[in-house]
Amino acid sequence: MKTNISLEEARTILLENDTPMIREYINLQDSLDRVVSENIIAEENLPPFARSPYDGYAFRAEDTATATKEKPVILEVIEEVPAGAFPRKRIISGKTAKILTGAPIPEGANAVAKYEETEISGNLVSIFSGFKPGENVVPAGEDLAQGEIIARKGMVVSPPVLGLMAALGISRIPVYKRPKIAIICTGDELLDVSEPLRPGMIRNSNTYTLAAYCREIGAEPIVLGTVRDRVEEVGEMINRGLSEADMVITTGGVSVGDYDVLGEAVANIGAETLYWKVEIKPGSPNLTAIKNSKVILGLSGNPAAALVIFHLLGVPFIKKLAGYADYLHPQIKVMLKNNFQKASPRRRFLRGKLVIENGAAWMEITGGQGNGVLRSLIDCDILAEIPPGSGPQMAGSKLQAYFLK
Amino acid sequence: MKTNISLEEARTILLENDTPMIREYINLQDSLDRVVSENIIAEENLPPFARSPYDGYAFRAEDTATATKEKPVILEVIEEVPAGAFPRKRIISGKTAKILTGAPIPEGANAVAKYEETEISGNLVSIFSGFKPGENVVPAGEDLAQGEIIARKGMVVSPPVLGLMAALGISRIPVYKRPKIAIICTGDELLDVSEPLRPGMIRNSNTYTLAAYCREIGAEPIVLGTVRDRVEEVGEMINRGLSEADMVITTGGVSVGDYDVLGEAVANIGAETLYWKVEIKPGSPNLTAIKNSKVILGLSGNPAAALVIFHLLGVPFIKKLAGYADYLHPQIKVMLKNNFQKASPRRRFLRGKLVIENGAAWMEITGGQGNGVLRSLIDCDILAEIPPGSGPQMAGSKLQAYFLK
Repeated sequence: MKTNISLEEARTILLENDTPMIREYINLQDSLDRVVSENIIAEENLPPFARSPYDGYAFRAEDTATATKEKPVILEVIEEVPAGAFPRKRIISGKTAKILTGAPIPEGANAVAKYEETEISGNLVSIFSGFKPGENVVPAGEDLAQGEIIARKGMVVSPPVLGLMAALGISRIPVYKRPKIAIICTGDELLDVSEPLRPGMIRNSNTYTLAAYCREIGAEPIVLGTVRDRVEEVGEMINRGLSEADMVITTGGVSVGDYDVLGEAVANIGAETLYWKVEIKPGSPNLTAIKNSKVILGLSGNPAAALVIFHLLGVPFIKKLAGYADYLHPQIKVMLKNNFQKASPRRRFLRGKLVIENGAAWMEITGGQGNGVLRSLIDCDILAEIPPGSGPQMAGSKLQAYFLK
Repeated sequence: MKTNISLEEARTILLENDTPMIREYINLQDSLDRVVSENIIAEENLPPFARSPYDGYAFRAEDTATATKEKPVILEVIEEVPAGAFPRKRIISGKTAKILTGAPIPEGANAVAKYEETEISGNLVSIFSGFKPGENVVPAGEDLAQGEIIARKGMVVSPPVLGLMAALGISRIPVYKRPKIAIICTGDELLDVSEPLRPGMIRNSNTYTLAAYCREIGAEPIVLGTVRDRVEEVGEMINRGLSEADMVITTGGVSVGDYDVLGEAVANIGAETLYWKVEIKPGSPNLTAIKNSKVILGLSGNPAAALVIFHLLGVPFIKKLAGYADYLHPQIKVMLKNNFQKASPRRRFLRGKLVIENGAAWMEITGGQGNGVLRSLIDCDILAEIPPGSGPQMAGSKLQAYFLK
């Protein structure tokens, strides 16, 4: 078992241990936020035919070469094409078709004059300027050409992707099944939300926060609840989690104290601990173990410490498990908006939020940075890194950061 | 009826016409992404008592004033306090309690030495340096003090807010009901996703895209489907939407052509049109009407035109309806990453995505900007504004933009 390793090494170890989810087909209308499991190709052009963006008249652009305000070109209307209809006649020199927004351009025509730019008299239309071929024509395939990829394997279905699939007649969508994540909190001091406070006890918040974050990234949390600091009980609960879920996350019991039973519990049930402790603050005490090819991620019991490690290690792993092609947080550089007075003898991640001001990207610290301070995770979408051995950081310092979007 | 008004005037007119949603109480675990309907106050300190962040020994800091490596201060251990227990003894001068991570600090003690920084022999502990009062003590209320606001009225419940409410024993959450949005697409040319293409026809995508965007902001879409360009049929469908939903969104039939029946349909059912057409590109043809205090927002049938107006007008209105305190998109300044070659005689909004590079905020254009191009809404989280009468925009130009996050 490795110990006191870098964040990067811990993440590499974790990411090597994903077992990809199986695939399923679901209905288009249920596919929002799901992860596509194979490239989806446009089998048709979108739009399927060249069409008019306006109500107007379609003709051969060449016919209008000499048209001016004073000496318009006069064309004969031979057909009217509403949207949803299909032109029956070919446009030859001197002829035009009245055409409505969204209707197909008739064969032979290659330009459209807007209704309000023409003059109509009986079945004759006056055109007052020269048109270029293609003018006011939306070409077939403007949005997507036949053969193009609509959604790549590993992409999340967003509203416009869903719309494109509808437009292309794709009603069943290949996606990955959502990974199930069992969540267990350990600690003799933990009460549930509905219990009154008792001296020395605190209420469990970690299962709620972790379950909600899992949901946000498309995983299905299975909350197994709290368990006391007993090696056997913790081991049993982890075994139950492994049997019901694709991954187990625990909080608490992962430090060095007398009641830190997680390491022993994991060993007792025959799981192999791959590493213990990562060289960062907050959240250094955490471990990754593996049993039957399933990962057990043991986080600190302190809410903020647990959640920072969840963002830095848990989220990329769960996203990879879920099939995301982009499972790593983007890395950006931000300027610090506030002073951070504490020195950082160890590598530290600060909680903050992105603020864009006059084209520059700043990070505003979202509050106290203590291991237990959950409040500073509200609005936190940036984890900015302070290198080990640093002094206080002044406003304006440029920091490397993960963007948790 | 006003016509050809500015985006800002249209938005003001819309936002004046929201009828706030009623309130309901729901279970904590169902509250993710819901909008809080009243300020939620912490009735207790969080944590409820001062506690130790480490396994170690708790004592009076004053006792250690003279402690050095060579001449440690020796304290007598009078109690052991695990997490979840409550100290029974008061710490007086010369005494200490063994204390475990998360356990309450005993009365009289005001500092903690980590276990590994001490030496123990029988029931005597050596302390090798001076401690300051408060050192290694997490004060009561560090995360939230009693009386502080956890979640303000109009705030969306995020995972950390959910966790804080759990920690404070709040199991029923006051929220606003989700607004119901009826979605209707008009057009003789529209087929549904499951229908094979026919000449001159295209498949409806707008109901799918709009329903998905509604879901993303916490509204409940009611998809009424497509209706032909007939005044009576459109009117009937809008009436049905008004009876089932809190707002109706339509697409198509809102321009000036022979088949643009929306204005007439709205008038026919006795709705009052508040404005028609907004001075921007794309999406200029749109209208807002009102009947029985419910809003009808009529969008273009062109997918991108419809969705840009949905983002600029529909989203703020739906968010206000849903109870969001922050219902307007934040405005930011971004630098354009690509050239945009077209001139902009009219005020134009460009679709793009935020890219942060070396601390600067750029907008990358996400693709073709045609009225029908849905693809460029994939990854689009920025709508950047080009003022009317502008020429081509070169990479590096600074633009005012809405951040659609």
